[in-house]
Amino acid sequence: MKKYLVTGIGGFVAYHFLERLNEFGEKAEVLGLDLKISQEAKEYSFENIKLNFIELNLLEYRALEIAMVSFSPDFIVHLASFSSVGKSWEMPLESFLNNTNIFLNIAEIVRHNKINCRILSVGSSEEYGNVKESSLPLKEDTLLHPANPYAVARVSQEMLSKCYVDAYKLDIILTRSFNHIGTRQRTDFAIPSFAKQISEGVKQGLREIKLITGDITVIRDFIDVRDVVNAYFALLKDGKSGELYNVCSGKGHSLKDVVDLLAKIFGVQVITETDPKRVRPLDNRIIIGSFDKIKAHTGWEPKFKLEESLKAVVKNV
Amino acid sequence: MKKYLVTGIGGFVAYHFLERLNEFGEKAEVLGLDLKISQEAKEYSFENIKLNFIELNLLEYRALEIAMVSFSPDFIVHLASFSSVGKSWEMPLESFLNNTNIFLNIAEIVRHNKINCRILSVGSSEEYGNVKESSLPLKEDTLLHPANPYAVARVSQEMLSKCYVDAYKLDIILTRSFNHIGTRQRTDFAIPSFAKQISEGVKQGLREIKLITGDITVIRDFIDVRDVVNAYFALLKDGKSGELYNVCSGKGHSLKDVVDLLAKIFGVQVITETDPKRVRPLDNRIIIGSFDKIKAHTGWEPKFKLEESLKAVVKNV
Repeated sequence: MKKYLVTGIGGFVAYHFLERLNEFGEKAEVLGLDLKISQEAKEYSFENIKLNFIELNLLEYRALEIAMVSFSPDFIVHLASFSSVGKSWEMPLESFLNNTNIFLNIAEIVRHNKINCRILSVGSSEEYGNVKESSLPLKEDTLLHPANPYAVARVSQEMLSKCYVDAYKLDIILTRSFNHIGTRQRTDFAIPSFAKQISEGVKQGLREIKLITGDITVIRDFIDVRDVVNAYFALLKDGKSGELYNVCSGKGHSLKDVVDLLAKIFGVQVITETDPKRVRPLDNRIIIGSFDKIKAHTGWEPKFKLEESLKAVVKNV
Repeated sequence: MKKYLVTGIGGFVAYHFLERLNEFGEKAEVLGLDLKISQEAKEYSFENIKLNFIELNLLEYRALEIAMVSFSPDFIVHLASFSSVGKSWEMPLESFLNNTNIFLNIAEIVRHNKINCRILSVGSSEEYGNVKESSLPLKEDTLLHPANPYAVARVSQEMLSKCYVDAYKLDIILTRSFNHIGTRQRTDFAIPSFAKQISEGVKQGLREIKLITGDITVIRDFIDVRDVVNAYFALLKDGKSGELYNVCSGKGHSLKDVVDLLAKIFGVQVITETDPKRVRPLDNRIIIGSFDKIKAHTGWEPKFKLEESLKAVVKNV
């Protein structure tokens, strides 16, 4: 029975990860860590998964060390992250600590205690930063220009991972994961926020709904969270240690496209209004990735179309 | 009267910084911070400097904030660093925290409290990592390949600095400072360690002295600490905010060259023996910098030759 240590167990990616793990049919053991485990998470029930939780702060080295040594995982799926770009501008310190430093604690504990496991180190498409259109779609060897504190934290995590692989022979697979889309994502992210705002308008019987947004002209590579977790399983199985993989759809859509699709799915008119507070400093204009490398190494490719992903979000809003 | 907040006040660079500041003849006020202030530092006496000390851990945000707001510096000269590459392999976590995280605390405190000051953010030639000989001498726009935890920490600090300059308009000058050489450097660094070992042999009356070393074939750009602090004053005065400057001699010498020069200065025979424990994983073979940019922007250039620097070290060993 394989043992998975999953950080950020209360997050939406972790939920989809557990759901997929359960579908495999093999029995698995999961220890889920989070700062605070919600009642909802505590009630997760998956017939093939023996699931336990510990509430702890990943910045507390000793507490984390005790949990990791006690559980002795085969895989560490490190999903915990302060992952909002917007909030990283407000709280750069917290963003850095809760990305780079928590990863560093995990790597150090694995090294010190010689825990024999494979680590999935999740990074972000934000690491690429402001790129020229000529370098699209972004491949893993594209030069990085991280342009916000969250992106810097992720690049730092990646550079540290490489030291741990090269010098200490830790088994780490690195990803640059692109913008997730899917059910259970918190509504401080753009798409769930849009879906919720429109849904509330629909409940009030409005035919024309006003949506408060940030800059919706930016183009992103949105990938269904179910594709993301499939990629993570593919990488845990067939990824090469020390290698870096884009996890992306390979397609670019503006947030305006998303709004238009949501309007279509809900069957309403949507008028957007830009809230200057939601426009971030130095935002990247366009991000589209290439998934050639992960496909070549693992056979993985994305399955869900943007409209299917949005329909799932709308159904569960 | 200008006010300088100097972190790492007990270190050898800080001593030379104070000495130079004193020589300018203008009255200045310095608040020196360090984890532990040595008795020796407490007895520093410079006629033109009003010097105070506070013992604090730069990782303690609130303590640091109180000190910085109370003092209200015109310049922050951030010299504190866990700067040993060798030790960063043994203690990557401490290395990262005591480079990147302490810098981030300083930048956050300046931002939050709107402290109107210029910050000197010191980085390292180690950031360049393993480079091809064809890219020597290294210019500031050379692609970085940080190859040890200390180097990663410095690159992270640099990327964070850029965010603070671009988005928050902090006034930060960045350096990549090359290998320092000079009096008062701790003997866990190679050159003072060599000088001390040879000096002890000389005291014992030996004519042939055995020296325990790491890999002495690596080539480094050694720069006299007096040149370094001159560069820092030049940058505080004429450096451009957000710009990055190599602080280097522009010349490469192997550690073997250094050993040979030391043997010549002491007038003894030196036989070297490699201690495998002192050979670092993944070490950079050759590092030589270009000082064209700092010279163009400030007029600074290095003055001391390697042999002069070594003579100063030997005189004070």
